[in-house]
Parts: sequence; structure tokens; C-alpha cells
Amino acid sequence: MLLPLNRKSQIENRKWGAQMPTASLIVAAGGRGERFAGPGARLGEGGPRTKIFAPLAGRPVLARTLESLARVAAIAEAVVAVPAFALGEARQTFGDRLGGDRPLKFVAGGENRLDSVAAALAATDPGTELVIIHDAVRPLIRAAVVEEAMRVAVEHGAAVVGRPVDHTVKRVPDGRKVAETVARQLLWLAQTPQVFRREVITQAYARRAEVVGKVTDDAQLVEAMGREVVMVPGDAANFKITTPEDLRMCEAILAAGWPFGEG
Amino acid sequence: MLLPLNRKSQIENRKWGAQMPTASLIVAAGGRGERFAGPGARLGEGGPRTKIFAPLAGRPVLARTLESLARVAAIAEAVVAVPAFALGEARQTFGDRLGGDRPLKFVAGGENRLDSVAAALAATDPGTELVIIHDAVRPLIRAAVVEEAMRVAVEHGAAVVGRPVDHTVKRVPDGRKVAETVARQLLWLAQTPQVFRREVITQAYARRAEVVGKVTDDAQLVEAMGREVVMVPGDAANFKITTPEDLRMCEAILAAGWPFGEG
Repeated sequence: MLLPLNRKSQIENRKWGAQMPTASLIVAAGGRGERFAGPGARLGEGGPRTKIFAPLAGRPVLARTLESLARVAAIAEAVVAVPAFALGEARQTFGDRLGGDRPLKFVAGGENRLDSVAAALAATDPGTELVIIHDAVRPLIRAAVVEEAMRVAVEHGAAVVGRPVDHTVKRVPDGRKVAETVARQLLWLAQTPQVFRREVITQAYARRAEVVGKVTDDAQLVEAMGREVVMVPGDAANFKITTPEDLRMCEAILAAGWPFGEG
Repeated sequence: MLLPLNRKSQIENRKWGAQMPTASLIVAAGGRGERFAGPGARLGEGGPRTKIFAPLAGRPVLARTLESLARVAAIAEAVVAVPAFALGEARQTFGDRLGGDRPLKFVAGGENRLDSVAAALAATDPGTELVIIHDAVRPLIRAAVVEEAMRVAVEHGAAVVGRPVDHTVKRVPDGRKVAETVARQLLWLAQTPQVFRREVITQAYARRAEVVGKVTDDAQLVEAMGREVVMVPGDAANFKITTPEDLRMCEAILAAGWPFGEG
């Protein structure tokens, strides 16, 4: 059901040669109380169903996300954290292979995103060098971007794909009236994947109870340890699907031939 | 060349009835030193050509933007600020009518965006009640969103279309290493249109020399006067075209039938 490795990634793989590190892929599909961010209508209302099964141009969102990531040859295995109620359906729908040839496991997510990633992390093969963490609902991720983040993670320990803020940013404490315009220089929006050397993310998760305040991404745990985290520029197409409008945009981009020649 | 008013807007118009305020539309197409934000390849490199002529599904970007806005029946006239070198080509390409029936003028923009908007503001009909300011390179703006911003501007004086931040935000002082994760609650990304009661934006521009620091949008001048500015939720599709990839995404969304039933 998933795409085999494509030619481009095989070429990439040869380019890296013996230095190509192996990676475990963790896909986070939300915990029991999946949060739906952003304005507009929500997906998955009216019952315990997660967005990973929502059809995107005829195939489930998670199938698309896994296909995109299967193009990265250095990924040796994938572990997907899904809400416990969805485990059976997920295994039946997505099978047990990534890209036809690598292990694909499903584990039950926890109360929140961090608990889910922790559960998935515990289920990965401790022999891989890198851990790639990606949101299940960002299907339009290009292999070249993942591979650049992997290179940066090898060198610096932690890499976050994101985009520099190119909007004016307003602080709106009551969600309606503007309190001030925030200096946008220096601000980046974090996406996923976030890629880590295994020992970095393992230590960060082991110490996460010590972190004060709300944690909204994995890199924040690494930052809290005082360790280096480096940004890697990503694409606008790598957005998170939260509304039916987002799904439609995604379908439109796929129909136009995404990933536009990367193959 | 531009679309006539469509049925939906005529219905909207009847709904507002006698309370429907008249508006001047200002479209900002960049000054002499047009800034191209965001990563990736840039449009318009290699010569004095602006993005407004870039073909979007076979028609210039600005033609698409003007078509979208022509659907707002309350817009009585449009003034577009373009770089001086592009004035002749713009008049020839886009004509002198918005939606076939309302005046469309082109004026030479200034050194920067604020100067350009000031030049356009001076060229508007002082008899309209509202001023709508929109970026030339945001073609996918829905009439319903503009009309909601107009309603809010009538009530509060100033309305900014935008989206709550649903990403983790990182402060990255050197553009590479993360210094900290910024609390994203309360942050919004501003888009355009920004809509103002005429006296509010006129006063704000008259006093703009007094504003300290970098000003990146029109509402910031109104905030600097201590006046109320209210956010209006917009769509993800209303993004700014800065790279060839953005153009392709835009074409894909148009091909999928945007504005998806609004007509």
C-alpha cells in the first residue's frame, strides 16, 4: 500500500555513503484528547475518530504522511503513536511495513503529545543513531528537507524544521483587541520534523518532569537542558491539517503535482 | 477584463441595506525597493519587474486580486500603488475599471510600503467612509472576510484580518540557533485586508513621523495613537505570494475551485 523507495532517495543514499546515519521515525497522531487548533470547522467531531483516517485525495492522511517519509532511505523503522481506541483500525488500515520493507509499529498514545512521543520513543530500536519526530497530519513533507534536518542533527544534536515569520505579529490577550505589535525579526514558526541524536532526545524525555511551564514541542525539552537546537528552513506546503479547508488545500497541492519534481 | 459583481455580493448588499458604508480600496504593490520575504527562490529577480504581473493560472496576480475584491459591492473605487517604472504597463494591463463599473487608478508608490499607502490614500475620494488596505500579492481573499472586517471597522475604527498562531514560536537571533521558545498563546499573525474608518487612518498617517521603531503594517500606526484595533479571523488561503512555490500553491487552490462555493 505504501510507495517503494524512489530513485531519488536511492541516489541520495549513495551520496551520503557510509556516513548515512540510521534513524527511527516517530509519528505523533495525538493522544486521547487530541487538540484541534485554529479557527474554522473542525475535523473528527462527533465521535472518537482521529484525523489520521480522514481521506486526502482518496487515501487516509496518515498513509500520505508515511509515503512521504518512506522516501527517506535512512529511516530504518517507524513507530506511530495513536489514540488507544484507534489501535486496531490503524493496524488494519496501514499494515506493518513502511515503504514496503521496513518495520511499522503502532503504540497507544498517552494523555498528551509528550506522553505519546515518550511511549513511541520507548518502542523504537535503541540501535539507531537519530530519532525523527513528525506530526501525522503534515503529509506534504519533502525527503530533501528531512535529510537536511538529519545532517544538522548529526552535527548539532537537535534540528527543527521551520519557517522565519514573515507576517506582522500582534499580541491579542483577549483574542480580539490588539495590545501591541511584536518585533517579528528573529521569530521562526516551528514545524516538524524535529530530528535528534538519540542520546539527546532520550535524556531530554527522561528529564521532562523537571521542565516548568507549557511544552508545545519536543525541541523545547532539549532547549530546557541548555543544549543546542538549530533551525532548518522548511516549505510552506508542510502545514498541519486542522480544518476541512486545510484538507482541501492539501488535495489541491497534491493534484498540482507535489512534490514538484522531487519525485 | 475583470469580473462583474456576482449574485452573492448583490444579496449581501441588500442585506446591509442603507447601513452599508462606502469604501475606498487601496492595493499596495510595493515601493521602489520591493522586499521579498521568506526563504526559497525569489520572483522578479534580474530586473525591474514587480510580482503583480507574474502569471497566476494564466492571468496576472494583480488581476486575480482585483477580481476577488471586486466581489465586495461596497467598494466604490480602487487606488493601486505600484513602483513608478511600472505605471504605464499597469495602466495598460489592468485598465481603469474595478469589476467593470468602478474607478480604478494607479499611483506611483514611494520608497517603502508606508509611503506607497500614503500616496494612494491621498488619491482616494475623501467622501467614502471606510478605507480598505490590501496587499497586491494576496489574491485569495474572500468577499465575506472583507465584509466582516468592514463591519468591525465601522464599530471599532480599525480591523485587521489575521490568524491565531498555531505553531510553536522560536526566537532565533542569529537565524540559526534557537534562543528560546516564545509563549504562543495570545499571538496572531496579521494579514491584509486592514480596514479603517477614514478619519482613523487619515489621522494615523498624518502622525506617522512621530512613531518610533520599525512599522510593518498600517494598523501599527493606529495602535501607536492608542486607538483600538480589532482582529478578524481570516483564511489560510489568504497568504502572500513571495516565491514561485507560493504561486504554484495559489494556482493549485484556484484549480480546486476556490473560493469553494462562495461564488
